[in-house]
Amino acid sequence: MEHDLLIINAFFYDPTWPVPINKGFLSINNGLITGFGRMSELPAISARKTIEAENTLAMPGLINSHNHAAMTLFRGLADDLPLMIWLNEHIFPAEAQFVSEEMVYWCSKLAAAEMIMSGTTTVADGYFHEDQAAQAFADAGIRAIAAQGVIDFPAPGVPDPTKNVSSVADFINRWQDHELITPAVFCHSPYTCSAQTVKNAKDLAAKTSSRFFIHLAETEFEVRKSKEEYEVSPVKYLHQLGVLDESTVCVHSVWLDDEDLQILRDSGATVATCPESNMKLASGIAPLKEMLELGLTTGIGTDGCASNNNLDLFQEMNTCAKLHKVKNLDPTVLTAREVLKMATIGGAEVLGIAETTGSLEIGKRADLILLDLKAPHLTPFYKPESLLVYAAGGQDVTTVIINGKLIMENRQILSFDLTECMKQVDRLSKKITKPI
Amino acid sequence: MEHDLLIINAFFYDPTWPVPINKGFLSINNGLITGFGRMSELPAISARKTIEAENTLAMPGLINSHNHAAMTLFRGLADDLPLMIWLNEHIFPAEAQFVSEEMVYWCSKLAAAEMIMSGTTTVADGYFHEDQAAQAFADAGIRAIAAQGVIDFPAPGVPDPTKNVSSVADFINRWQDHELITPAVFCHSPYTCSAQTVKNAKDLAAKTSSRFFIHLAETEFEVRKSKEEYEVSPVKYLHQLGVLDESTVCVHSVWLDDEDLQILRDSGATVATCPESNMKLASGIAPLKEMLELGLTTGIGTDGCASNNNLDLFQEMNTCAKLHKVKNLDPTVLTAREVLKMATIGGAEVLGIAETTGSLEIGKRADLILLDLKAPHLTPFYKPESLLVYAAGGQDVTTVIINGKLIMENRQILSFDLTECMKQVDRLSKKITKPI
Repeated sequence: MEHDLLIINAFFYDPTWPVPINKGFLSINNGLITGFGRMSELPAISARKTIEAENTLAMPGLINSHNHAAMTLFRGLADDLPLMIWLNEHIFPAEAQFVSEEMVYWCSKLAAAEMIMSGTTTVADGYFHEDQAAQAFADAGIRAIAAQGVIDFPAPGVPDPTKNVSSVADFINRWQDHELITPAVFCHSPYTCSAQTVKNAKDLAAKTSSRFFIHLAETEFEVRKSKEEYEVSPVKYLHQLGVLDESTVCVHSVWLDDEDLQILRDSGATVATCPESNMKLASGIAPLKEMLELGLTTGIGTDGCASNNNLDLFQEMNTCAKLHKVKNLDPTVLTAREVLKMATIGGAEVLGIAETTGSLEIGKRADLILLDLKAPHLTPFYKPESLLVYAAGGQDVTTVIINGKLIMENRQILSFDLTECMKQVDRLSKKITKPI
Repeated sequence: MEHDLLIINAFFYDPTWPVPINKGFLSINNGLITGFGRMSELPAISARKTIEAENTLAMPGLINSHNHAAMTLFRGLADDLPLMIWLNEHIFPAEAQFVSEEMVYWCSKLAAAEMIMSGTTTVADGYFHEDQAAQAFADAGIRAIAAQGVIDFPAPGVPDPTKNVSSVADFINRWQDHELITPAVFCHSPYTCSAQTVKNAKDLAAKTSSRFFIHLAETEFEVRKSKEEYEVSPVKYLHQLGVLDESTVCVHSVWLDDEDLQILRDSGATVATCPESNMKLASGIAPLKEMLELGLTTGIGTDGCASNNNLDLFQEMNTCAKLHKVKNLDPTVLTAREVLKMATIGGAEVLGIAETTGSLEIGKRADLILLDLKAPHLTPFYKPESLLVYAAGGQDVTTVIINGKLIMENRQILSFDLTECMKQVDRLSKKITKPI
């Protein structure tokens, strides 16, 4: 039987496997992984394309569990500022003025390029004009959970807040059968959406079997305000509204007490942690050790470029593992393997797509990446986990396969014109402010 | 007058300058920066080589204020372990068995490659067989403060601890007139060297006008032991020994109380902070905000590869800035510009070479790097500081000039055979353990 793609002689690593395959093959057909094993077990198959992958590590593509992709336009626009000045004087005004359909398309596509080039094969995105984001991801060939934003203020594309939930219903309708794009609901937060809006948004998500995302307990200020207004923490508040369940993704989840953690666990809600964003905005450090001990399903996200400022999940894993070691003054906390799981199968579980992707398994979609091991910072090679989390970076990814398609080869994006995309974003950025 | 090298059309950035030069030139002759300015002011000079640097950012080369370069051999050998198991069961036995002249040469050279490829032009190194490290740095063409280790145990190359200080005297003698290498003393720590050894080592440093490095207050355990044994903190103990002055570099300096900070300030001693190593080993977070407020001279280092595990100072700056924001729950702490200063002019001051390097100044040695700005993760471009600290990585460095010599161009190291070096380190690593 002829296959679409055959990878040979790679070192295959998957954090869900008990041991890696030192010299192996993996075959792909019709977008699916059809087989893998040791080179000595390679069956007699022919392939339309064979990738010779000696000195290369192959692994599942990374899953970015939280992003606002279009915010690449605001990368480096305003940094090192107090949170409220950053938000109210820079980010919100820039969003009000410069978010348009065109902006969301090109800036999400730029984000897709950056993610692909650093080994991400699936992204969970939430923004306005999400149709354009979804189109950009589809055109770029990256898998996405694209969630249209819900907020109780006039928003880009939804000037009338009474239509905030119905506009998502239309959005979900348009994208529900796409091969790469899974539509979803992004309810901004408990402090920007009324109780009724939160419940309506969750009802829509439930009715359409979609993921329901919400920013939750990101700052101490948010928790204090919630307790003042509702007499309970944001987690308890959402629990009382009845919106915490297995399909709810709690983004950030930094300021949680023991009771909040128990509620999350009992509800089955999942968490997308964004350590670098929480560090840069000085929001705090999530109780990740405690979450993992309780068995919460947890993925890792970069957040948008205004607060990170890049989308490299390798760097995010590195920082995440180190941050929780020093937070707990315990170097055994968050091992390299644990954080790799969060960035692959964990993310897939958070996003409800673990049957489709997140690991190298026969029958799953072929979402995988190859890293060049012949680099000084990856020499010598003892343990793949250590190398991937503590030494490698997104730049080491040479080849990206998504849904069985070759999307990047030798660091060249094949699915779209990257130069044109960068030009468009440069043009849009010049409307905001000229470079020095 | 003919020049050795002329860079044209670059965006020049230096954190010590009030404003960058958007489209500028820089000329180099006999290893020195001879001029720079706007392209419109370019004088009529000819150059043996001209680098067309459109879409490129040029800046001072980074200064790694603390490394044990040869420990690249132990990169990823043992991670996520309790500190004492890591040290006593993995790192110390591996060092006892595998540190040799050959190992130090090849593994320091590999580190040099990794540092050059991520934009470092000066490294402060401390290890055993430091002659071999210095030779590797000289052969690689990287500027180094090479400090021979002093410890009160039999050490590689110095089996008789009574010769630990005199062997450094010989080392300093051999290297004191080298163009790229400045020899120095690395007194391991107050807990591995007796009071007499510390004093003897400092006397040697003073007599030879050399830098005196010492690991200091890295862990809470070290501080507790010092108080038990000497009734004072490690900083006060060194102060009482009379070894803290402007030529002393206190590496780590994590666990300091207010009095320790005052002592360091009053003594003029400088600090090399290693945030990623302190995170990964779960040692703690240094009081960097307080150090900067007190005006302590501070540089940034990666530490060795056993505890980081790469030598990318761009990543280190990124993590450093974010870590101190979240530690203080204040996003204005440690701005991008402040951390860039620590990694350039600050490091030069810590190492006592600020008259030679650390900034783009006429008459200084030409140590500079060029970064390719045409990458999705560096698009758009608003502020150079933000881009360099929060979005860029060592992989964006395309060209490295050290001491006026082109050491890397288009990511190809020109000064030595990198492939041979990686082969040698791979060979040495296979003595320790085979890859899986």
